Amino acid sequence: MIWMTSPKGTIIVSEEVYYPAFSPNFPSLVAGLHGKKVAVWGHLRPDGDCIGSQVALVRVLRGMGVNAYAVNAHPIPYNLGAFVGDTPFFPPDSPDLPEADETITVDCSTLDRIGSSAASLKGKILLAVDHHISNPGFGLQNWIDTDSAATAEILAGVFCDCGVRMDATTAQALYVGIATDTGHFRYPATSHRVFSLCSHLLDCGARPAEAAHELFEKESIGRLRLLTLFLESLEFHHDNRVCIGFIRHSMFGETGTDRSQAEGFVDFPRSIDSVKVAVLIEEQADGSYKGSLRSKRPSVRVDQVAAAFGGGGHACAAGFECRSTLQEFKAKLLSLLEKTVSA
Amino acid sequence: MIWMTSPKGTIIVSEEVYYPAFSPNFPSLVAGLHGKKVAVWGHLRPDGDCIGSQVALVRVLRGMGVNAYAVNAHPIPYNLGAFVGDTPFFPPDSPDLPEADETITVDCSTLDRIGSSAASLKGKILLAVDHHISNPGFGLQNWIDTDSAATAEILAGVFCDCGVRMDATTAQALYVGIATDTGHFRYPATSHRVFSLCSHLLDCGARPAEAAHELFEKESIGRLRLLTLFLESLEFHHDNRVCIGFIRHSMFGETGTDRSQAEGFVDFPRSIDSVKVAVLIEEQADGSYKGSLRSKRPSVRVDQVAAAFGGGGHACAAGFECRSTLQEFKAKLLSLLEKTVSA
Repeated sequence: MIWMTSPKGTIIVSEEVYYPAFSPNFPSLVAGLHGKKVAVWGHLRPDGDCIGSQVALVRVLRGMGVNAYAVNAHPIPYNLGAFVGDTPFFPPDSPDLPEADETITVDCSTLDRIGSSAASLKGKILLAVDHHISNPGFGLQNWIDTDSAATAEILAGVFCDCGVRMDATTAQALYVGIATDTGHFRYPATSHRVFSLCSHLLDCGARPAEAAHELFEKESIGRLRLLTLFLESLEFHHDNRVCIGFIRHSMFGETGTDRSQAEGFVDFPRSIDSVKVAVLIEEQADGSYKGSLRSKRPSVRVDQVAAAFGGGGHACAAGFECRSTLQEFKAKLLSLLEKTVSA
Repeated sequence: MIWMTSPKGTIIVSEEVYYPAFSPNFPSLVAGLHGKKVAVWGHLRPDGDCIGSQVALVRVLRGMGVNAYAVNAHPIPYNLGAFVGDTPFFPPDSPDLPEADETITVDCSTLDRIGSSAASLKGKILLAVDHHISNPGFGLQNWIDTDSAATAEILAGVFCDCGVRMDATTAQALYVGIATDTGHFRYPATSHRVFSLCSHLLDCGARPAEAAHELFEKESIGRLRLLTLFLESLEFHHDNRVCIGFIRHSMFGETGTDRSQAEGFVDFPRSIDSVKVAVLIEEQADGSYKGSLRSKRPSVRVDQVAAAFGGGGHACAAGFECRSTLQEFKAKLLSLLEKTVSA
């Protein structure tokens, strides 16, 4: 709630309070960090929400006089590099990494997700900011809200609530975190709060078209070739309710790509009207198979199918690994899926 | 500006005014329409913004006691049908179409865009609502704002400004209009106002995930097969700065599709980092060719390349038709593009 004086007297400009449970704690948190070195950790194989949240929290803390910096066991993905600006990022084995007095994690559903440094930091995490339902609250303080579409949404909301000044790089990083974790505003967690916060982030300098350019218009020719081979492989089963696509290990060599570049391919079969479950089967270097399952609605439980192979996940998105022959494995998978898509 | 009474007395809740030039005219416009039959026309080959704007304006007027209905010379596309609800839509030749006392157009850049009825309606359009820069203002009243990303954005803003009650179907239709005309929040016109209005539309019942499902998860198998053939055809030229993809006429038969289902394919080559100009060449039934050109920035002028073939368009999106052989035509096109992408 912000008070302003108008020419006619004192009026209340009603502003939304986004995170009433977390925001009141932010000023004292920052006060306790002055004079300390603060590491802000993200998770392994970082995504847009992880990097965006690290960039934003580090920049805001530094802007408030705290010596904060980001630490990440895996490098920043090529399509997110443009959003980091001059934010200090370190790998954990860097000789330049300052020894942290305090540690904060963002977007890590368990402490293990930060990598091998987790063991030494158990019980010592000052604050965990996260939106994953599986987060047990491993921080001394926890800002965990599972109704939020992104960790960046929580940070953006707290910063707005507290009237924190955000520079354009911070606003853009938070925007990218929200945009990527909502499937660019397509997933069910896309809420009033998501759009309201995005409108604030644009006021602070976020640029959606530039973000989209970096995220979606910087593909490699190899990735498009890999996609072409994947689309050629599509098979339809069970009255077109199941669609399976294959990635043979040799395709990476043929197209000059690696595994990470198959990200999102399963959305192509999933986009088909008749398809209830889309499957991506990826042959591993050792000849085993990795399966990714996607359904369109939570009532079609792909986590149960994945569990039959020793895997797991969410109702709509699950995965597993398998060591049997492709033929055996596919027969078992199709048999399990037949029941699932007929339910 | 909305006045509310709080327990502490009368306070002003400051609300944004989105369209101060248009909104004050809405109440008198509606007052003048009572007792009349009002046709709300959209344009030929209607898109999400057109249908969404028609649905919303007709429903809001009907909610205010005006006998409004939508008229469209072309049918509602298959992927937009779910957003119409019980809004009355008529083709112009329907025996059930009421004879209109007043006519409003939405999203029509010229009156001709409504189709062959344009001649008889010249000079008689009560109101034109539009965001196209080429609109000459052919209405007696015009709500034309070229800074708006969508016609639906203008309508949503006026309705919010005027405190108009929107039902869930209206809010969803406006959301779909905004989402489709911003390239799902990717184009440069994606502004603070866009996100702010979307947050209001969600309060009124818009459902982004349901909209995304209808828009992006109802593809046909044929369209995915056509996409596969298109991706297989991609050729790279001029140091990978130009990418050309082909659609032979026979592909439609092979995949059980038609021309309309190649919509958006040119975005795949356009998504590649090195590509400055993406081209889709489509063989027509009569053996001639249709070219669609897309560049990533306005400084790479594809309209000038299209003009050399007698076509035209915008700086970043242009098209043309061509009757020469594919070999001749491709040689000329590549020669023109060499200069364009080197500039």
